[in-house]
Amino acid sequence: MPTEVKSLNEECGVFGVWGSPDAAQLTYFGLHALQHRGQEGAGITANDHGKLRTERGLGLLADVFRDPRRLEQLTGQAAVGHVRYATAGNHGLENIQPLSFNFSDSQFALAHNGNLTNAVTLRRNLEQNGAIFHASSDSEILMHLIRRSPAATLTEQVKDALRQIHGGFAYLLLTNDRLIAALDPNGLRPLVVGQLPTGGYVVCSETCALDTIGATFVQDVQPGELLTIDDNGLTIDHYTTDTQLAICSMEFIYFARPDSDIHGVNVHSARKRMGARLAAEQPVDADIVVGVPNSSLSAATGYAEASGLPYEMGLIKNQYSARTFIQPTQALREQGVRMKLSAVKGVVAGKRVVLIDDSIVRGTTSRRIVKLLKDAGAKSVHLRIASPPLRYPCFYGIDIQSTNELIAAQQTIDQMCTTFGADSLGFLSEQGVIDAVGLDTTEPYGGLCMAYFNGDYPTALYDYQAEYDAEIAQLQANHEGVIK
Amino acid sequence: MPTEVKSLNEECGVFGVWGSPDAAQLTYFGLHALQHRGQEGAGITANDHGKLRTERGLGLLADVFRDPRRLEQLTGQAAVGHVRYATAGNHGLENIQPLSFNFSDSQFALAHNGNLTNAVTLRRNLEQNGAIFHASSDSEILMHLIRRSPAATLTEQVKDALRQIHGGFAYLLLTNDRLIAALDPNGLRPLVVGQLPTGGYVVCSETCALDTIGATFVQDVQPGELLTIDDNGLTIDHYTTDTQLAICSMEFIYFARPDSDIHGVNVHSARKRMGARLAAEQPVDADIVVGVPNSSLSAATGYAEASGLPYEMGLIKNQYSARTFIQPTQALREQGVRMKLSAVKGVVAGKRVVLIDDSIVRGTTSRRIVKLLKDAGAKSVHLRIASPPLRYPCFYGIDIQSTNELIAAQQTIDQMCTTFGADSLGFLSEQGVIDAVGLDTTEPYGGLCMAYFNGDYPTALYDYQAEYDAEIAQLQANHEGVIK
Amino acid sequence: MPTEVKSLNEECGVFGVWGSPDAAQLTYFGLHALQHRGQEGAGITANDHGKLRTERGLGLLADVFRDPRRLEQLTGQAAVGHVRYATAGNHGLENIQPLSFNFSDSQFALAHNGNLTNAVTLRRNLEQNGAIFHASSDSEILMHLIRRSPAATLTEQVKDALRQIHGGFAYLLLTNDRLIAALDPNGLRPLVVGQLPTGGYVVCSETCALDTIGATFVQDVQPGELLTIDDNGLTIDHYTTDTQLAICSMEFIYFARPDSDIHGVNVHSARKRMGARLAAEQPVDADIVVGVPNSSLSAATGYAEASGLPYEMGLIKNQYSARTFIQPTQALREQGVRMKLSAVKGVVAGKRVVLIDDSIVRGTTSRRIVKLLKDAGAKSVHLRIASPPLRYPCFYGIDIQSTNELIAAQQTIDQMCTTFGADSLGFLSEQGVIDAVGLDTTEPYGGLCMAYFNGDYPTALYDYQAEYDAEIAQLQANHEGVIK
Amino acid sequence: MPTEVKSLNEECGVFGVWGSPDAAQLTYFGLHALQHRGQEGAGITANDHGKLRTERGLGLLADVFRDPRRLEQLTGQAAVGHVRYATAGNHGLENIQPLSFNFSDSQFALAHNGNLTNAVTLRRNLEQNGAIFHASSDSEILMHLIRRSPAATLTEQVKDALRQIHGGFAYLLLTNDRLIAALDPNGLRPLVVGQLPTGGYVVCSETCALDTIGATFVQDVQPGELLTIDDNGLTIDHYTTDTQLAICSMEFIYFARPDSDIHGVNVHSARKRMGARLAAEQPVDADIVVGVPNSSLSAATGYAEASGLPYEMGLIKNQYSARTFIQPTQALREQGVRMKLSAVKGVVAGKRVVLIDDSIVRGTTSRRIVKLLKDAGAKSVHLRIASPPLRYPCFYGIDIQSTNELIAAQQTIDQMCTTFGADSLGFLSEQGVIDAVGLDTTEPYGGLCMAYFNGDYPTALYDYQAEYDAEIAQLQANHEGVIK
Repeated sequence: MPTEVKSLNEECGVFGVWGSPDAAQLTYFGLHALQHRGQEGAGITANDHGKLRTERGLGLLADVFRDPRRLEQLTGQAAVGHVRYATAGNHGLENIQPLSFNFSDSQFALAHNGNLTNAVTLRRNLEQNGAIFHASSDSEILMHLIRRSPAATLTEQVKDALRQIHGGFAYLLLTNDRLIAALDPNGLRPLVVGQLPTGGYVVCSETCALDTIGATFVQDVQPGELLTIDDNGLTIDHYTTDTQLAICSMEFIYFARPDSDIHGVNVHSARKRMGARLAAEQPVDADIVVGVPNSSLSAATGYAEASGLPYEMGLIKNQYSARTFIQPTQALREQGVRMKLSAVKGVVAGKRVVLIDDSIVRGTTSRRIVKLLKDAGAKSVHLRIASPPLRYPCFYGIDIQSTNELIAAQQTIDQMCTTFGADSLGFLSEQGVIDAVGLDTTEPYGGLCMAYFNGDYPTALYDYQAEYDAEIAQLQANHEGVIK
Repeated sequence: MPTEVKSLNEECGVFGVWGSPDAAQLTYFGLHALQHRGQEGAGITANDHGKLRTERGLGLLADVFRDPRRLEQLTGQAAVGHVRYATAGNHGLENIQPLSFNFSDSQFALAHNGNLTNAVTLRRNLEQNGAIFHASSDSEILMHLIRRSPAATLTEQVKDALRQIHGGFAYLLLTNDRLIAALDPNGLRPLVVGQLPTGGYVVCSETCALDTIGATFVQDVQPGELLTIDDNGLTIDHYTTDTQLAICSMEFIYFARPDSDIHGVNVHSARKRMGARLAAEQPVDADIVVGVPNSSLSAATGYAEASGLPYEMGLIKNQYSARTFIQPTQALREQGVRMKLSAVKGVVAGKRVVLIDDSIVRGTTSRRIVKLLKDAGAKSVHLRIASPPLRYPCFYGIDIQSTNELIAAQQTIDQMCTTFGADSLGFLSEQGVIDAVGLDTTEPYGGLCMAYFNGDYPTALYDYQAEYDAEIAQLQANHEGVIK
Repeated sequence: MPTEVKSLNEECGVFGVWGSPDAAQLTYFGLHALQHRGQEGAGITANDHGKLRTERGLGLLADVFRDPRRLEQLTGQAAVGHVRYATAGNHGLENIQPLSFNFSDSQFALAHNGNLTNAVTLRRNLEQNGAIFHASSDSEILMHLIRRSPAATLTEQVKDALRQIHGGFAYLLLTNDRLIAALDPNGLRPLVVGQLPTGGYVVCSETCALDTIGATFVQDVQPGELLTIDDNGLTIDHYTTDTQLAICSMEFIYFARPDSDIHGVNVHSARKRMGARLAAEQPVDADIVVGVPNSSLSAATGYAEASGLPYEMGLIKNQYSARTFIQPTQALREQGVRMKLSAVKGVVAGKRVVLIDDSIVRGTTSRRIVKLLKDAGAKSVHLRIASPPLRYPCFYGIDIQSTNELIAAQQTIDQMCTTFGADSLGFLSEQGVIDAVGLDTTEPYGGLCMAYFNGDYPTALYDYQAEYDAEIAQLQANHEGVIK
Repeated sequence: MPTEVKSLNEECGVFGVWGSPDAAQLTYFGLHALQHRGQEGAGITANDHGKLRTERGLGLLADVFRDPRRLEQLTGQAAVGHVRYATAGNHGLENIQPLSFNFSDSQFALAHNGNLTNAVTLRRNLEQNGAIFHASSDSEILMHLIRRSPAATLTEQVKDALRQIHGGFAYLLLTNDRLIAALDPNGLRPLVVGQLPTGGYVVCSETCALDTIGATFVQDVQPGELLTIDDNGLTIDHYTTDTQLAICSMEFIYFARPDSDIHGVNVHSARKRMGARLAAEQPVDADIVVGVPNSSLSAATGYAEASGLPYEMGLIKNQYSARTFIQPTQALREQGVRMKLSAVKGVVAGKRVVLIDDSIVRGTTSRRIVKLLKDAGAKSVHLRIASPPLRYPCFYGIDIQSTNELIAAQQTIDQMCTTFGADSLGFLSEQGVIDAVGLDTTEPYGGLCMAYFNGDYPTALYDYQAEYDAEIAQLQANHEGVIK
């Protein structure tokens, strides 16, 4: 589960339901279970007998709906909702979803998780043909393409539009008479279908949201699928058959909630297996195993059990930190004032510690935590990362689009070890991730997108290609031997 | 760490500092680390060149100080702060501390953690002599006693007052020229002293607050001690020598933060030892060990390691639940809508689960969690509690003063097992707690107050005695064989 | 000045400035002076070296910018702002202005006061050509027309777009390098230009906003004009010469602030002259003159002075009412609980009262006030209205588009007098309004739009024509002799 | 009605009701009508079957009760409420009333308007006898005196307490079984009794609150009276017969709402008579009469009618100013940015203006308004004040206790005229005030306290005497001829 100590951010969670008198309430509780996928904004659109109404705002879901009347007035039998992580310079209200569209004879609400690789080109073409854009994000593009499609039916217009976009995307589109869901041809972002005990259907980012509202899992949405849910039930169709599963490996490593299942694999269990594999690949002679809370606890127990070392709570995270706006001044920080993470002296003092983290992005947190443990008396700190080095940017919806932010793109493992002040440093192998996840598939990389680790992107990069090539060339020039 | 799934609530955390230009800021960060001790109200009083100013309010610390100007205006070199858990019917603003007192020639701010056993008698006597009370809590009594003492100096007046009160208490009293701290003769509530890197002194409820602000641990305040901190430094005195250490065992079992040390014992480690001892006392033939998050995770890993069973994340707590005001309706709850705890199907399905909880109060949570696990497919659920049955009320500051709220006071272990729907149920022994904590003392019960478990209170009960006797007699009559 | 006792609502106030380092601050204070034109939402867009940033929200300006950081981050030398009255069913965040538009190479912010008569047709045409709409209001249409114009320059595109729209409108359009202002060919909505002491230019709805920020009046924007303000100063151009001044008479009667001047005529003075003329046209033998606060006070003093009767404060408005959300229950209302208006018993008891109101919309307020005065002991109440009966809807930006809401469209003056419980009732004549305003023009109706009173609209009604014809026909059938 | 442009502040409004199922709601609406008497804090205590519950907070009433649940939970058939103006350095939550007191067998809620002249002495005596004080205001003293009284009944204890205090005071005391009201022996503060249509009784500061809730006026509370309202109805008693009516003249001149009646005299009418008398005493050869909004409008119309000059709205006050927290910077103020008051150029340009203000305190506002009018083109500004020069402090509840703040205590009328930049300056005479109010009494000064104007205080000054004497002596030395 993401915490604020990691500078790696999912861009969204989506939730839609059709066929419940409590549609907006269920969407609220479903989004509550998906809050880890985005904390900067939230919104819900409800459909009451064909009329759409939206409430949205900046902040956590509970803040947006602090006044219960905002939720109560979202009556109706269908709804769609969204939690958003806003990237820098992009946090205006106009980017909070669901986006609303109002036409003379119809209304739409759109919720989107992902990122398009040909958005700049599409946008420029649309603008040249008179299209206007309110927000700076990609999400309006699909609506333009749908409305400009010459196809005869809405379904065909949506398919037509989806065939023009590339990248990673999971869309929910609520209209006056149906709920449409679509997933990109690589299934880069997770999306699942469930059924309510009372009969209606739910589509959402993770199974944890199904469990939270008491819905039964039906299936993972497959790459290239187009689902339509209306008063006649669920229809599963596809807009393309040119698909190849490549689900984001970081969902398993870091983003998804441990209790979610993705394509049949429980996330906690996959992380525990990563930890166990890491113990085999990167053993240490040490006294205790400590995980970085909260996201690395599964991997840490896996490492502990496989290595036979005791698992200890050597670090503790203040569970109230997310809410405070008052931060220590620089002077107080230098005196040692710390808000979020504390080392447990009574546990780590005098010990040789294996510190398990799920991944390393900028490396600033790693350096801080190693120091925290050593200040608390740890004899040595051996950092073990339950994923391979992150060396390449993501263009499918994760908030890192430049290798400048990735320490592993600029330093060798030895250099990083020195930077962190650790006594040793080891990463899990790519094959280790693939085996630990263990999807039942014959697709390349076991059905995972491993581009973060090896630069092998499952789609063409379109608008990003030139910039990407230049960046890699510069990295190879500046940091010899780091990027191949 | 307390969570909202347990109906057992500490009444307060206190923090005071003398001798730092950032006194109120340090108090804010210290209280932030003590937020688990009370979430219903918070306040800080600062002393700026002898002039006291207080800001306080209902809600979490971060809510009370949401407007940063409230904290910024608390200038000065000393401060005292408080986080409060408000008992039912007792949550007015007038009960939020620190309490302020303004006299013609002096000011006082009082922060109090604990409960007095002779408060009713003292209050009635004071009222008969013209005393007026603003709030309904005990905390004003001390100020009355101090002001009515005939002693010549403030120190002697405070000692005089302290000798008249009985029960569990940790007081911080900020005046125009000093900070006074006092602990009850049994040391029922935790209180520690630390020193800032810049020289000033800190007194607070737990060592985790010292670590958070970068202060060095000096000592646990001892039963019967009276500390005075002023511009001349720290003076340790005592108001009574008739003392006997009996620190609340529930601090080790449930309340305190795992990274705190109490009288030299790390709380996480004590809990892990309780889990290990529980494995020895109450073994199970099972597949996995699951702890109730977050408070039982230490004990659960202890049980897992001692038993050789794998420790799994079979339950997950939504980290955003504390903040939402919207709760599922009864109808939605019946359909399975759950806000806070989820069972991880992929982990528990088909498994024989040892479920570790730190303690059982009303039992409603236990029943709910057992059902959650079974609904998620657990083959069997063996509930193991890392403390003895809670059968007797607490009169020293914990929010349970009646056995009507304690299931173990009314049902045998077999009856409780049936109530919870568990496949088996076992508790840690009293000696198990004492050994696992392992305080370096020759005091009875290893220096712990075990009255919760055995009714052997370290002090006379005064105002509560008659009601207590009646309650026990009724329990013995109604539930034969439960209470001895 | 509008108050909540009248169900007649202006739709907006606009303010723009180019060429001040304090652009957003000035916009804030300017909008503050225009707050009477809309209380449901507010927003400001600032231009900092070509980059636009917007902050907007629901509620009063002071509520939207309660956190001063929201205003502080709107840095830059130009800004545009808007206060909005949201019509029923239309109060979503997406309708709060300025609207933002983001293109690959440019940004726009649009603030709009008014209403288009061919919006439905334009919208339908645009939709058929692929245009998408976020909000339900008219305001996006102009942006679509601009972007779809084949003209070569932005100025020509804007002119092209303006020539396609009909109705009443005052637009402010902030771009990366200029501020554009435009007024409809009849000048239905007020719009003025001013100059800052430091050199920059301001365009806004009323002169009171110029006075508030210390700007000098330059000119009223004339019908059909297009103004461009950039770093080279002010350029005055026009997009049509087919113009005829017909400024909304209700601006003089009710909407505008008394200290504003419109086309050279001070609003308070015009109202006072209306009151004086009313005294001549509709004299009463009475004891005192009382005005309905606050909007009718000017007319009431005019009536008093012309009639020689004393002007008395017989009604008082609670100045804090605007902010309270708690309203009396029906039971309490029946017991006489009143929040907003009180009659002053000591003033009106036993008196024959001339009650002056500026206009009558639904008539519910008039009935209530007459009752209030009689309950307070008034011997008789003679209601005099300082404008003619409102019998026809407005299609140019006032929130009454149906005659169903207008009592004077359904009852004769005698019937209304009975409905209100008044002892007599009289209205100012149309010529009385025209003479009292006294614009220096030879245009029909003295340059005023009098359609509200006589149905003589200065423009074709386009999309509204059919519905309007049907409505009038029905009125004539149902209420013989009321509408001619 | 007080506005923020005058630095003269009433300290409170009180409201109490016994015998209505909507007691707290009625108190809310009653306090809403008294909001002009204090805007810094508000609170309500309700009595539900003998159990008292209080909600209070900083800010306007509507802000304190923004969450409607705060009011809804104040159930019960009796209530008492308070709006407070907090003097400098005195604005903590602990000073917001009603104050709550909780005893073993009883509860009290106290609401207080006024100021005691022997508070310091009483407080010191009480402290020497062990009394503790939470707040810095006077209001706790009465509770101490009541509880320490040896009298046998609560009524006798209250009388005993009231006889020990001196100064100006109106108290409401809600207990478990009754509502008690008391007024000082000079009736310095207003207090009235009313009856609900449903039978219960109301006691409050002004009759406007009775009108707002539909209650019938019963009587003004008389000096020295003690009222008790309980389930048996209203009992009128007195605690002293040594009384002499001296009601605060500033209530008539400035504080009270124009629609209130005080001792049978309507406030608006009294002000209008002051204006008329001022016209006679201080005539001017001018073109128009302008009043400072809102408090001087009654006096201005009186002046206009008596002088035969037209009354004009030459100044306008922004009705939304009270709520904004953003103020112009000094630089913007110098450029002419003004938030609150605007001069109406179209009205005042080229005119000789008689400017009517009700009173002058510091004089800063007067100077600002004269300049505003001259900047707007007024040919001359003749300032006429509808009360005598304020030269002496108030010790009975008005927030000016030092002559340093009073310009008329330091400058002659000619000097003030120069300071203000006015063309002439004139004040109403003391006899003018007395005649214009015209109370039906033979008491000195027509039953008014005129000490503000002539230093003739109706009570001994006790604790303030020495300081007052020194201040007057210094004034006489420093400003010859100003103070006699």
